[in-house]
Amino acid sequence: MAARLQSAPVTEQRKRAVLAFSGGLDSSAILTWMVKEQGWEVVTFTANVGQRASDSLGAAAERSKQLGAIAHESVDLRRELVEHFFVPALQLRARLEGRYLLGTSLARYPTAREAMRVARKHRATVLSHGATGKGNDQVRFETTWLVLNADPDLHIPGMEIFSPWKEQVFLDRFGNGGRVTMRRYLTAMGIPVQAGGTEGEDPYSQDENILHISSEGVALERPEESHVGRVLYTKLVDPTAAAAEPEFARVFFNAGVPTKIQIEDASGTILRRPVEGDALAVLDEANAAAGRHGVGILDMVETRYVGIKSRGVYEAPGHTLLLEAHQDLESVVLDGPLIDEKLAEAPILARLIYNGGWWSQQVRKALAGLAEEQKVVNGWSLVRLYRGSATAVARWSPNSLYDPQLSSFESMTGTALDPQKARGFIDVQALHYWAAERSRHQSREPARRA
Amino acid sequence: MAARLQSAPVTEQRKRAVLAFSGGLDSSAILTWMVKEQGWEVVTFTANVGQRASDSLGAAAERSKQLGAIAHESVDLRRELVEHFFVPALQLRARLEGRYLLGTSLARYPTAREAMRVARKHRATVLSHGATGKGNDQVRFETTWLVLNADPDLHIPGMEIFSPWKEQVFLDRFGNGGRVTMRRYLTAMGIPVQAGGTEGEDPYSQDENILHISSEGVALERPEESHVGRVLYTKLVDPTAAAAEPEFARVFFNAGVPTKIQIEDASGTILRRPVEGDALAVLDEANAAAGRHGVGILDMVETRYVGIKSRGVYEAPGHTLLLEAHQDLESVVLDGPLIDEKLAEAPILARLIYNGGWWSQQVRKALAGLAEEQKVVNGWSLVRLYRGSATAVARWSPNSLYDPQLSSFESMTGTALDPQKARGFIDVQALHYWAAERSRHQSREPARRA
Amino acid sequence: MAARLQSAPVTEQRKRAVLAFSGGLDSSAILTWMVKEQGWEVVTFTANVGQRASDSLGAAAERSKQLGAIAHESVDLRRELVEHFFVPALQLRARLEGRYLLGTSLARYPTAREAMRVARKHRATVLSHGATGKGNDQVRFETTWLVLNADPDLHIPGMEIFSPWKEQVFLDRFGNGGRVTMRRYLTAMGIPVQAGGTEGEDPYSQDENILHISSEGVALERPEESHVGRVLYTKLVDPTAAAAEPEFARVFFNAGVPTKIQIEDASGTILRRPVEGDALAVLDEANAAAGRHGVGILDMVETRYVGIKSRGVYEAPGHTLLLEAHQDLESVVLDGPLIDEKLAEAPILARLIYNGGWWSQQVRKALAGLAEEQKVVNGWSLVRLYRGSATAVARWSPNSLYDPQLSSFESMTGTALDPQKARGFIDVQALHYWAAERSRHQSREPARRA
Amino acid sequence: MAARLQSAPVTEQRKRAVLAFSGGLDSSAILTWMVKEQGWEVVTFTANVGQRASDSLGAAAERSKQLGAIAHESVDLRRELVEHFFVPALQLRARLEGRYLLGTSLARYPTAREAMRVARKHRATVLSHGATGKGNDQVRFETTWLVLNADPDLHIPGMEIFSPWKEQVFLDRFGNGGRVTMRRYLTAMGIPVQAGGTEGEDPYSQDENILHISSEGVALERPEESHVGRVLYTKLVDPTAAAAEPEFARVFFNAGVPTKIQIEDASGTILRRPVEGDALAVLDEANAAAGRHGVGILDMVETRYVGIKSRGVYEAPGHTLLLEAHQDLESVVLDGPLIDEKLAEAPILARLIYNGGWWSQQVRKALAGLAEEQKVVNGWSLVRLYRGSATAVARWSPNSLYDPQLSSFESMTGTALDPQKARGFIDVQALHYWAAERSRHQSREPARRA
Repeated sequence: MAARLQSAPVTEQRKRAVLAFSGGLDSSAILTWMVKEQGWEVVTFTANVGQRASDSLGAAAERSKQLGAIAHESVDLRRELVEHFFVPALQLRARLEGRYLLGTSLARYPTAREAMRVARKHRATVLSHGATGKGNDQVRFETTWLVLNADPDLHIPGMEIFSPWKEQVFLDRFGNGGRVTMRRYLTAMGIPVQAGGTEGEDPYSQDENILHISSEGVALERPEESHVGRVLYTKLVDPTAAAAEPEFARVFFNAGVPTKIQIEDASGTILRRPVEGDALAVLDEANAAAGRHGVGILDMVETRYVGIKSRGVYEAPGHTLLLEAHQDLESVVLDGPLIDEKLAEAPILARLIYNGGWWSQQVRKALAGLAEEQKVVNGWSLVRLYRGSATAVARWSPNSLYDPQLSSFESMTGTALDPQKARGFIDVQALHYWAAERSRHQSREPARRA
Repeated sequence: MAARLQSAPVTEQRKRAVLAFSGGLDSSAILTWMVKEQGWEVVTFTANVGQRASDSLGAAAERSKQLGAIAHESVDLRRELVEHFFVPALQLRARLEGRYLLGTSLARYPTAREAMRVARKHRATVLSHGATGKGNDQVRFETTWLVLNADPDLHIPGMEIFSPWKEQVFLDRFGNGGRVTMRRYLTAMGIPVQAGGTEGEDPYSQDENILHISSEGVALERPEESHVGRVLYTKLVDPTAAAAEPEFARVFFNAGVPTKIQIEDASGTILRRPVEGDALAVLDEANAAAGRHGVGILDMVETRYVGIKSRGVYEAPGHTLLLEAHQDLESVVLDGPLIDEKLAEAPILARLIYNGGWWSQQVRKALAGLAEEQKVVNGWSLVRLYRGSATAVARWSPNSLYDPQLSSFESMTGTALDPQKARGFIDVQALHYWAAERSRHQSREPARRA
Repeated sequence: MAARLQSAPVTEQRKRAVLAFSGGLDSSAILTWMVKEQGWEVVTFTANVGQRASDSLGAAAERSKQLGAIAHESVDLRRELVEHFFVPALQLRARLEGRYLLGTSLARYPTAREAMRVARKHRATVLSHGATGKGNDQVRFETTWLVLNADPDLHIPGMEIFSPWKEQVFLDRFGNGGRVTMRRYLTAMGIPVQAGGTEGEDPYSQDENILHISSEGVALERPEESHVGRVLYTKLVDPTAAAAEPEFARVFFNAGVPTKIQIEDASGTILRRPVEGDALAVLDEANAAAGRHGVGILDMVETRYVGIKSRGVYEAPGHTLLLEAHQDLESVVLDGPLIDEKLAEAPILARLIYNGGWWSQQVRKALAGLAEEQKVVNGWSLVRLYRGSATAVARWSPNSLYDPQLSSFESMTGTALDPQKARGFIDVQALHYWAAERSRHQSREPARRA
Repeated sequence: MAARLQSAPVTEQRKRAVLAFSGGLDSSAILTWMVKEQGWEVVTFTANVGQRASDSLGAAAERSKQLGAIAHESVDLRRELVEHFFVPALQLRARLEGRYLLGTSLARYPTAREAMRVARKHRATVLSHGATGKGNDQVRFETTWLVLNADPDLHIPGMEIFSPWKEQVFLDRFGNGGRVTMRRYLTAMGIPVQAGGTEGEDPYSQDENILHISSEGVALERPEESHVGRVLYTKLVDPTAAAAEPEFARVFFNAGVPTKIQIEDASGTILRRPVEGDALAVLDEANAAAGRHGVGILDMVETRYVGIKSRGVYEAPGHTLLLEAHQDLESVVLDGPLIDEKLAEAPILARLIYNGGWWSQQVRKALAGLAEEQKVVNGWSLVRLYRGSATAVARWSPNSLYDPQLSSFESMTGTALDPQKARGFIDVQALHYWAAERSRHQSREPARRA
């Protein structure tokens, strides 16, 4: 048993565990094993973070009971995910290694926290997840649980973490975690496996939520082989099959939060009923609009927290569109040095979020800084969507720092810009470079003391 | 006269000046004014940095003599620009405010330096440029001259800088710098103005070199108006008019320098004769390939060094393609923390380059660091070009850190990855977060002394 | 007249100006010149920022009237300086180039802002200062005025800035700004110059406030000559003449703000009545305590905003002590990565503050982040003061992350630390370094496509 | 047995191990246990990194043989430590959390690497160390071994790592690692324990090398208790017992490397024969000079890599002196923005070095940057040493950027500084702040489209 479970052998104590449960093959096998072979009481829960499978949340509840769970909870975390995690990430311009938008990372936080709420409700003490032992998700789940257990509102007395893919007894049973083994296991246990499933391995594993879908592994394991033709896009269309005409998305922000999206044609005619309201609704519409233009494909190799290089293909249509709009709007309301500072901090915070460090002093401080910074991020940006690209082409803000009149300096002091000012500016700012260059070429006489 | 020229009234001393000269309206007017009204000896020079107008470099030489220049120099700076300025910028991922690829900024450095060489050759002491008093180019030219004048190999004894758009006498003559005024001036001086020129203002001003073409001003001055339909793309086609089928560019790098580019179709069939050789040749082909797919459009508002927000539309097809390929290749050969470090430094160095600070201790240090870092950037990246987007889809390196076998840990110590290792890693790395969270919620008893 | 004054010739309009006035030689000469020769109405004001000369604030008021000012204001800005500028700088660990504590920089902000309040009260439109044209202070004053003029609560319609040391007419009169010239000028104008003043130059110029006293120029202009024996310390004693026995200052903080200071001997016996209350009172006592031990001397060369290297000698006893205590206390309550982040940001913010950029989006964002960060900075640090050094020797916090029990991991999961965890941690965290090292030495076979 | 040793049970294969051996209690017990109970062949080695105990290196060799080692190596790593690790750390201004000079961290790298050389020479495959399972040293040793095993010149086929304090069989024998247990164990094995050793625990554990001595644990475990009186300084004198008169150390650098040190009195009279030569010799003399003035005491709480806050007391006299001198000299030869950049990078690199990451792409890149940067760090700094403080008071460089004449601007353009230049500089640089402030207070009319 796990190091963190070893003090309490299963045979002597009937444990109660919480398990995130999708109703799919993996979680069905894990649930069955926990209930039937370990003899635990298991409470399952399904978090709706916007994945397509969440259409059949009812089915998950039913299947959970069939497999022996003592209770099942179904929770909708979409709003929490979007408002508390996605929006700050958007505002931070958080992209892992400058590229990956952190769709999976962000969704783990509300899900992991929710598991603790479910556990408290059902007086369970064991938190379990089905993430493998070589990835990032195990770190995000377990770090969240370990950290938030220090929060009195979430504390679980005697909390234990059960991670089957790190347990020898589980590994002995399921070998390398192959889905073929799981299917056979469930069949042997007399549990029906979903129709249409073939005996073979899936071509890649996926993770989906409202922000994105990721594909990795198996058919994608050779990064020198193009993903085109290997990955079947599901959250967006292939750019070559996208709409023939560009659309233009006018995205409105209020204090840095997307609050409205309006789809137009090139002449500015509104093509669809604008979606206005909260960030969740805007993101939904952004996904639809960017998705039909094939926007948001990323094929990259990243450095996992556990040090392994990994290749993933991501589809994040709405996030890609909203980030283009948000940073474009920021360009007219934020001062240049502040933008530089944001860019310098973004990779550090992106790595922290990717690595499971959301509940940290660093993120808390960053959020407080954001709240101040984003006050002026009001207005809109207009983004052209066309066959795989999202390109800002116009933007406006009531807090804009852009002003054609400004260049005259008139509004500052009442007089026109004297060209002498530029001369003075140039000469003064050049001085330190000049001094450094001179010192490279010229040595002065040694001081008396030297 | 300019503050830096005031000690030597023109009437008493016949000055010899160097002027960058394109043969166009602006430089013709300035040259005429310097020669005819100021009585200076002017040496003109035309730098070929890859602008289309450089096709008619001979015409510039001829016109220069017609307007009274005492000599004309024509220099090809394309290789210098690409190898000494573009390649490091590419390797640094230098993008102003995370977006602008610095095409104009980079080209000013070799041009400004060349002016000094021309001046030394012709024993001129006055360096002049036609950049306006509200932009960045004046800073780049003058800073380069002031700084490099401390280099003995470039030093010009008694060097003076003449910047007509900052001189009252010049401003008095040419008002707001309108091109209409210039046309009339030249006509009045009996100088033929190029045929086909209308009396009106140009719709925007442009700057072009091998890296990009920028458009700004006039018709683009309202950032809330889309540039689409206002700007006529010249270095790339409109994405909606681009090739119907995607092409795939396989870009090879050697120690971070692009050395070969090969255009393929989706099945890997080579479509064109691969271009192999130096970075200049690769960039040329990259411009052609990305250009015919409409890749590399950027419409943004930026913060100029002189503090003014400015809107520009940029077309940088080849640079955009090569950057996508280079950073994609880096993702498999550079360690994650080093990529994070690069990303954190990039905005600082981009601003420095944008602001005219190339000849600085900071850039020298950065270049030395790059030389070490790029040693492992060998291999290729495959980039899909299609209707406005350039998307890496595969990559390979002999120095790759990616290895499917690696995840087994076998090669490190001879034994397979014990899942306990991940457990230990997670628990240990979570500890400091947990301690911080606990301290937020829990106060311990005061120390005796408190 | 100044560019920013040129539209309104003095002879045609009776201007009303505000002038910061100390009653000393410089400001007396400037005031006299403004009133007697320019014919302006001048309102003087004296800001008490803790300088010793502020003991005779009454004398300044009287002298101001003698010299012809139409009104005089005396304002105590010490609390504003300490609470709004010093405390954040302390919390940011702001030190220019890692050394200078920014004593002068910080004091300019409230003083410059106060000038605007005085101007509004007296309906003056001209703001003037006596800072020279080669230093940083001119930038801080004028930038504050230009920026805050955009704040409706401080806006001065038709505001003009008058900086005599940048005006040719003033320079013509006072030459190189020598104090000898000023003395002669005042004497010639029939104005008594303070007794005891010699005809010669001062050995150096000083600036003092509650935070520090700086000395620079003249006798200190050769950085290769030791300041020892050239500078007469005034805010602290020479370390060699300091108290024979160490004292220990126990400094208490509440949310990062110093709220109490208690002086003890080595055995913990309280030597003086503890000072408790606001940061101003604590700073006063810190100055006294650190000052009698010669703590806080800095002799450094710095890079001024205008690009000139400058040498200064600083005495900042209280600030030095409080910074040592604050960062020492932070070391037990802030997470390591957050401390690293603070350290990486500190030089950027210090430069910004030094350069006059307090009223900026960057500083506003930083302050918002600080407010969150400092919530846990509660407790005390004990600092040994002895003959020039301030060394933390103990610290305690109710929010401490330090816990001897913590190392056992017991409180996290209920089980003792399994040594396997360290093994797992080490192996996993070493993986990416190993992969990078391997890639340096080993090239794998070229891919088929290459 | 360790996971990394499990594939080869000891009973079936006679392993050959390398063990770092000081001859002290801990390493004697470990050696005895490895030889007598595990039946391994052990090669011991003693690295001279400047610790005092290295005076009796011969004794270690003899004792090693007595305890059954098959061979013993004694290596002098002082020069390697100083030149390859200390000097770069000095130039980087590497201080963990802005304070700790990394004395222990730096020394682990050459020692760990040397163990691999010894192993290769003696065909040993097991590398072992005696560091505990909660500290940083285990990470540094094992990471070095894992990483450098990828270097063909250091590769050990079949390399295994043996870390006794992480092995259950060892922990079972030696409990909590108490020294009392070890004494009894050795006595029971018939091995003489050094005379004078008491039965009790040491008051704290120490680590010493030429750079510093650290003290931590036991009597120092309560950070709220002053270390004064608890720690017996050994590498420096107590400041209160230091020399009555200050001394002044003039430290010379050549390309950033300390090459000479000269001790003077206040009048500049040379008090001792100057030490000139390599950095090792200069560091030795710096230790002596700073040590006799009580310079270099640090009492701090730091965040260990394994997440635990830890309190240490450090004595680093020479390093403290040389850092003060080096950064002081840099202040006159490095441009301000470069110094800011150094300061921003220092905490990241310090953490990396502290965490065992020396052999990384990041450090390699940093070293390449340093080589360029330090070219101008020539000259000297004069540092006053007195009763605990080291304060730079003068400095000189042939590459100095400081120049009293510079402020006149004359050397740049041949004309004196026109005060208008400062005006232009101020107005232009203030513009972006002003625009941002205006935008906070003023909203313009909404655009037509909004």
